[in-house]
Amino acid sequence: MAKGRKLWAGRFRQETDAMVEAFTSSLAFDRRLFRHDIRGSIAHAKMLGRCGIIDAKARRAIIKGLEGILNDMEEGRFVFRPEDEDIHMAVEKALIERIGSDGARLHTGRSRNDQVALDLRLYLREEIDEIIGLLRALRGTLVEVAGREAGTVMPGYTHLQRAQPVLFSHYLLAYHAMFERDEGRLADARKRVDVMPLGSGALAGSGLPLDRRYTARLLGFSAVADNSMDAVSDRDFVAEFIFASALVMAHLSRFCEDLILYSTAEFDFIEISDAFTTGSSMMPQKKNPDVAELIRGKTGRVYGNLAAILTVLKGLPMTYNRDLQEDKEALFDTVDTLKASLAVFGAMMSHVRVKGEKMAAAAAGGFSAATDIAEYLVSKGVPFREAHGIVGRIVAYCIDEGKSFPDLRLEDFRRFHDGFDEEVLSLLTPEASVARKRTQGSTAPSEVARRIEDLGRRDK
Amino acid sequence: MAKGRKLWAGRFRQETDAMVEAFTSSLAFDRRLFRHDIRGSIAHAKMLGRCGIIDAKARRAIIKGLEGILNDMEEGRFVFRPEDEDIHMAVEKALIERIGSDGARLHTGRSRNDQVALDLRLYLREEIDEIIGLLRALRGTLVEVAGREAGTVMPGYTHLQRAQPVLFSHYLLAYHAMFERDEGRLADARKRVDVMPLGSGALAGSGLPLDRRYTARLLGFSAVADNSMDAVSDRDFVAEFIFASALVMAHLSRFCEDLILYSTAEFDFIEISDAFTTGSSMMPQKKNPDVAELIRGKTGRVYGNLAAILTVLKGLPMTYNRDLQEDKEALFDTVDTLKASLAVFGAMMSHVRVKGEKMAAAAAGGFSAATDIAEYLVSKGVPFREAHGIVGRIVAYCIDEGKSFPDLRLEDFRRFHDGFDEEVLSLLTPEASVARKRTQGSTAPSEVARRIEDLGRRDK
Amino acid sequence: MAKGRKLWAGRFRQETDAMVEAFTSSLAFDRRLFRHDIRGSIAHAKMLGRCGIIDAKARRAIIKGLEGILNDMEEGRFVFRPEDEDIHMAVEKALIERIGSDGARLHTGRSRNDQVALDLRLYLREEIDEIIGLLRALRGTLVEVAGREAGTVMPGYTHLQRAQPVLFSHYLLAYHAMFERDEGRLADARKRVDVMPLGSGALAGSGLPLDRRYTARLLGFSAVADNSMDAVSDRDFVAEFIFASALVMAHLSRFCEDLILYSTAEFDFIEISDAFTTGSSMMPQKKNPDVAELIRGKTGRVYGNLAAILTVLKGLPMTYNRDLQEDKEALFDTVDTLKASLAVFGAMMSHVRVKGEKMAAAAAGGFSAATDIAEYLVSKGVPFREAHGIVGRIVAYCIDEGKSFPDLRLEDFRRFHDGFDEEVLSLLTPEASVARKRTQGSTAPSEVARRIEDLGRRDK
Amino acid sequence: MAKGRKLWAGRFRQETDAMVEAFTSSLAFDRRLFRHDIRGSIAHAKMLGRCGIIDAKARRAIIKGLEGILNDMEEGRFVFRPEDEDIHMAVEKALIERIGSDGARLHTGRSRNDQVALDLRLYLREEIDEIIGLLRALRGTLVEVAGREAGTVMPGYTHLQRAQPVLFSHYLLAYHAMFERDEGRLADARKRVDVMPLGSGALAGSGLPLDRRYTARLLGFSAVADNSMDAVSDRDFVAEFIFASALVMAHLSRFCEDLILYSTAEFDFIEISDAFTTGSSMMPQKKNPDVAELIRGKTGRVYGNLAAILTVLKGLPMTYNRDLQEDKEALFDTVDTLKASLAVFGAMMSHVRVKGEKMAAAAAGGFSAATDIAEYLVSKGVPFREAHGIVGRIVAYCIDEGKSFPDLRLEDFRRFHDGFDEEVLSLLTPEASVARKRTQGSTAPSEVARRIEDLGRRDK
Repeated sequence: MAKGRKLWAGRFRQETDAMVEAFTSSLAFDRRLFRHDIRGSIAHAKMLGRCGIIDAKARRAIIKGLEGILNDMEEGRFVFRPEDEDIHMAVEKALIERIGSDGARLHTGRSRNDQVALDLRLYLREEIDEIIGLLRALRGTLVEVAGREAGTVMPGYTHLQRAQPVLFSHYLLAYHAMFERDEGRLADARKRVDVMPLGSGALAGSGLPLDRRYTARLLGFSAVADNSMDAVSDRDFVAEFIFASALVMAHLSRFCEDLILYSTAEFDFIEISDAFTTGSSMMPQKKNPDVAELIRGKTGRVYGNLAAILTVLKGLPMTYNRDLQEDKEALFDTVDTLKASLAVFGAMMSHVRVKGEKMAAAAAGGFSAATDIAEYLVSKGVPFREAHGIVGRIVAYCIDEGKSFPDLRLEDFRRFHDGFDEEVLSLLTPEASVARKRTQGSTAPSEVARRIEDLGRRDK
Repeated sequence: MAKGRKLWAGRFRQETDAMVEAFTSSLAFDRRLFRHDIRGSIAHAKMLGRCGIIDAKARRAIIKGLEGILNDMEEGRFVFRPEDEDIHMAVEKALIERIGSDGARLHTGRSRNDQVALDLRLYLREEIDEIIGLLRALRGTLVEVAGREAGTVMPGYTHLQRAQPVLFSHYLLAYHAMFERDEGRLADARKRVDVMPLGSGALAGSGLPLDRRYTARLLGFSAVADNSMDAVSDRDFVAEFIFASALVMAHLSRFCEDLILYSTAEFDFIEISDAFTTGSSMMPQKKNPDVAELIRGKTGRVYGNLAAILTVLKGLPMTYNRDLQEDKEALFDTVDTLKASLAVFGAMMSHVRVKGEKMAAAAAGGFSAATDIAEYLVSKGVPFREAHGIVGRIVAYCIDEGKSFPDLRLEDFRRFHDGFDEEVLSLLTPEASVARKRTQGSTAPSEVARRIEDLGRRDK
Repeated sequence: MAKGRKLWAGRFRQETDAMVEAFTSSLAFDRRLFRHDIRGSIAHAKMLGRCGIIDAKARRAIIKGLEGILNDMEEGRFVFRPEDEDIHMAVEKALIERIGSDGARLHTGRSRNDQVALDLRLYLREEIDEIIGLLRALRGTLVEVAGREAGTVMPGYTHLQRAQPVLFSHYLLAYHAMFERDEGRLADARKRVDVMPLGSGALAGSGLPLDRRYTARLLGFSAVADNSMDAVSDRDFVAEFIFASALVMAHLSRFCEDLILYSTAEFDFIEISDAFTTGSSMMPQKKNPDVAELIRGKTGRVYGNLAAILTVLKGLPMTYNRDLQEDKEALFDTVDTLKASLAVFGAMMSHVRVKGEKMAAAAAGGFSAATDIAEYLVSKGVPFREAHGIVGRIVAYCIDEGKSFPDLRLEDFRRFHDGFDEEVLSLLTPEASVARKRTQGSTAPSEVARRIEDLGRRDK
Repeated sequence: MAKGRKLWAGRFRQETDAMVEAFTSSLAFDRRLFRHDIRGSIAHAKMLGRCGIIDAKARRAIIKGLEGILNDMEEGRFVFRPEDEDIHMAVEKALIERIGSDGARLHTGRSRNDQVALDLRLYLREEIDEIIGLLRALRGTLVEVAGREAGTVMPGYTHLQRAQPVLFSHYLLAYHAMFERDEGRLADARKRVDVMPLGSGALAGSGLPLDRRYTARLLGFSAVADNSMDAVSDRDFVAEFIFASALVMAHLSRFCEDLILYSTAEFDFIEISDAFTTGSSMMPQKKNPDVAELIRGKTGRVYGNLAAILTVLKGLPMTYNRDLQEDKEALFDTVDTLKASLAVFGAMMSHVRVKGEKMAAAAAGGFSAATDIAEYLVSKGVPFREAHGIVGRIVAYCIDEGKSFPDLRLEDFRRFHDGFDEEVLSLLTPEASVARKRTQGSTAPSEVARRIEDLGRRDK
């Protein structure tokens, strides 16, 4: 066999154009799948042997050959050639070169169509497990910081206006809840990744007596793909994983936005450690929250990867079409971006210095106690909507007079409604505000403490 | 209270600008939530009563008032006013107008932030159930057509080139598998929709002793949101639903692409009924597969809705921001598009005339038996890769000679490899090809029949 | 002709299915094109008359009939029927009902394919002109506010950290520059909208001697489409317009983000008028920058519209396919969103109260003069990179000592470099910083004043 | 200076965390800008010298040093170190290492913010010119093939149904028209790229007397950026270029879809050369249009890049934020994808074998002459809408009888309308159909020939 000759070239009269070879080759990026490709091939060879399609000698030779190739690739000794097209051809060709005609039996009952589907699923199953681990580690960090900062009060914002005081730990647990949902989505996606496509051939299955369940067992799959045509053209699992990642990035982008705001001179709620910031080439005083900005920016690339794979799938006729080769870079880039973002964000988060006194001062300013006062009036029998109006007018009065709530005496309050009594004066600090909360899931210190303890115990 | 006066306007000195009112109003589209809004308010009132926050008289008055409003809205008698901002304010204002100060007690311990989250979740939970019903109906149609066309053979395509013969019913079941995964994704998304946010207030929870589990029970929710700040700013469930819908549309777009191709004069595999096609204003002979094209096109709008909601979420600071109002139209449009597409596609599908003889003729043409011949050589002990090369050269020979496989005699085959015997001549029909398949999930008639029976039984 | 009978139904044996009729009808949204459709039809009729394809009587009857329909539609008297499919059929059918067989001559040499392309181009040309007007008005507002606030200094931010003092008017002109580029892009897009497609027929042109240049002249088009197949399937102009709009929205989203930040309690640089904010249903004190948030959120929907149209176009075979009907809602929604956002943003902007003293105080804080000090050292012969390091060390010293630049005496500076002299003490105010700038396009007051004057004069 | 020490680290107490260094470094991808970075730095140094900010000796040393670095990079001798962050720092650090303190003067009056904006603009201006060249070459190929295949008739499709016969060369020119608009869009984008940002500093301009017009002249820019804050945060030009590329890809995806269809066994209109197709690992007979599929698939990645950059820009506060670093990979990938796709598509196109007889046979089948017959009736005075109905009924009759138009005799026609005469029988071939067309831009042979000649002459 000529070196440059394609393994599929029996019917072809002309060599592939060099530009076409470069354009269609996926080797530059799919070689990252070499472990999964070889692992899949070894399982396939074992199955072929067990089913009597190849004999024991061939099976052993193939497995040994593949292990040698794997070893060479692991060690960086394997020489990839541009004309090898993809990782599958690179491995098969090397096998044939190394072990001769037994190597030519490996691809029996198999097509690149089901082979690449297998490789991708093996790869992604593994990566999802790693990402779930990173999400858990990050959640662990959040619980830890929340525990450490148990007493810290901050202004809770809606519309980026101070709304009501909340515990900083309650704020952190809000992100914890998002990352918990993210794990749920990834676990659900993993079920649909964990399906074995091999044995579907190019699209129709095989006339050879392949034992697909055996291969699935060898590779630890929970299920075998039900329909060969679907199995070779299904990339739902790629899209679903990228979407789940896009939501993780959306959550990180929100968290980063907050951290960037909170580390401005104006908010001044936190300080990110020098080790997690960078400086300016021109302005000597600058210390920038680059990591947070970059993660926020990388949301764009994961959204873009999602747009890419969905566009690829739109309107594709059945079954496999070469367009599907475009699944890989979007997937790999998403995996890399997500893992790096989660890891660096977690590390940064555990190096954030929290300025509790600044947060508390901001929570005390403004009119954050307004809702508490209204609810206090409700407890005196005032319909809520009226109570809301009364407090609104007190706020307007304060603004006109340049006052804040703590400047008011009881008689000031009583001028707006005669149901006010001394108790109202005890409602005006942020600490009192959070302490008054009584609902499940609220920012009440006891409620937040309970949740921290639960999460700490559960995730242990 | 002045008619145009906002319920929240206590602290405001100026009326809202008319342009701003029009720009920010969501009433034109969120009024579709009126049933869910009122249902949520009734549950809220019951809970307030049970917890002693309002008395029994007020509770009864509120519930009766809300039922009256619901009734008027159902009957189209309710007059919406542009200055009502949104469905929540429209209902609350009407209630106060109708029952007086008791109505002003309804919004106790509640904010529009948790209220709208509740409404959306009630709405979407219901719609997901409907959509799952439509997916099942469509799958039922596919199983039915597959059963009816059990013996029909067609060319299976990869790269839109004839690859191997398959059963038309096998082809249909490939889409069945896609829609089955879609249902799984929607069911998974539903779990994350089915969480009760009420009682989270604006963001911090409430100082009143609200019983959130009771409200959840009244509204049939499986869980109560754990963190009030997350609960009011979480739109993951909207994004997740739209993504799951985007994949359904991707599948439909592929199916439509196939149907459009198969109803060309060139393929001529199917005919779509007159009732599901339209004509041309200029060309008298035209009969166009408009429905299939339009569904394929509508994939774009659902992808667009996904891009929209993800863009909205990117980089939003905590917690609720008005940007989130932009969740609704994307969601509603996705629900409408998906339901209409599934319904009309299913109806069209059951009116497709299958031209089995045309499919069979196409499957017989070309060199679709090539893989079967190669696998036959494998069974004679030829390594697959060599067998592939031998058959490739036979194909090249045929092309040069203007022949197809059935034109070859045994000695022609034997010129390429002496392992060929009479049996090869029995492999050359598409019927023989599918009959030879032996793997699980393949196009083998017995395998497909088994699957049709399983699915028919299971989905009964 | 039966009322429900389609005008194209000659070859059809079955009525269109009712669900299909509802699914494929575009009348609900394309009726907004009625003016353009009728205007195009009148021009077409004139051309048919001039070319002798219809006689003068028919021409006059058609024009009169169309004018009557236009009038009825303008007045809201026209009754649209669901079975009319689209605005084109609705008009043609009404014309035939009103004037009889002469009406049946209108569609001569025309297809809905070229007709709808014409309508869209007429519509969009007009809307682009309006949008350019709105962009100019907004730029005018910016120049006006910039002129009014000529002396106001604020902190310029990079990475949302205070970087260097700038004039608030310089900041405003940065957005002016963005909106100027936006106008350029829209004007460029308009060139490609301004091309007349009529006469392309369904795809091949016409066998009748239509004078396309005459029609173009009547409708004020600069050019006639060169290729009939391209003309009926080209939606580039829709995508290009939506993209240009997406960038406008991106700019508005950045501006809104700034305004939201600047109106926080923490920044407190501006106050948005009561008339352009709204309150909270629960929290009586809240005053939220809803308009700015909503515009920022609406960026998502325009991005989504772009994703939608691009998805529709991907992989469509030649020429017209029904998928293209999906161009309209994305386009209309973009036009509406863009116009409303520009109008309401401009109005809000002119009602913003600028708190100059707060801005100036923030600009004086921090170490914003650092770069000025470094450049001062450069002017003393110190290589910039060294100067940067020296000032960086001064900053670190200040942080350790809890000082800011104005706290330092000359000898403090000289401890870091002996080139410092008295002059350095004059660099430390934000006013001095902006006044020192010497480059074109910089924040130097003279430079900004010159620019304001130029723009004021130019846009007059 | 310690090797790992950052040039901006004066105020920092801690080294950058290694994970952060890896996460934030852009060197792996922005090193492709080295030529533009150095070219910009040389111009900057010349300007600094001319303005007397550095002396002639320093200027000469810097330029010589930079040329040395450029040379080493060109030759692949330059050793990039991971801790160099980006190409700008890598070059500046190397310069200082090589020429000492004069090197420390290069960054005077400059920030990485304006520097990277300059590099990107220099880079993109060059690439746009190359891409326009590729588009012209492709258009040249189309004109050439169109000229060669002047007489070939094919079925024109709408809705993928045979509509009317067209010339294959007319079909090719439709794509020519698309690529011509693409060039227009790129040329328009180029105007907005061709603006010089240097001298804007970090955001405020500079206190040094930099001559920005001189730098612009040296680098061949037509304009100088007007506003320093805008100049450092503007990435409109990146988004606009990616959008223009997305439309090119949309056009290529349509063309590829057509070629894939036309090379199916069912259409069989063209054959793509062996050198531009590839085979199957499993199915020996396969010859797949991989190049066309892959280009169609790559549309997804360019759409994705557009989504990415737009997402990055959404809601960014002024001015520069590190998120903007995410502009580069999206841009580079778009440039690479577009150039490769255009080049390989053009080469493939010129190796397509056109099967004219197959096309002509398909054009003769069906009822493609229907519109011609209707227009013929119009010329006999029948209102078009009636003529349409008459021909529709003839089609229905033919379908029932299993006939096509050429099977009908005059009396058959006359049974449907007595205005038919002998002439109708001459309309029934596709050649007659195209020959009858009379409108500008139509598929009439004379019209197409004129256009081919015009384009051939113009593009010479």
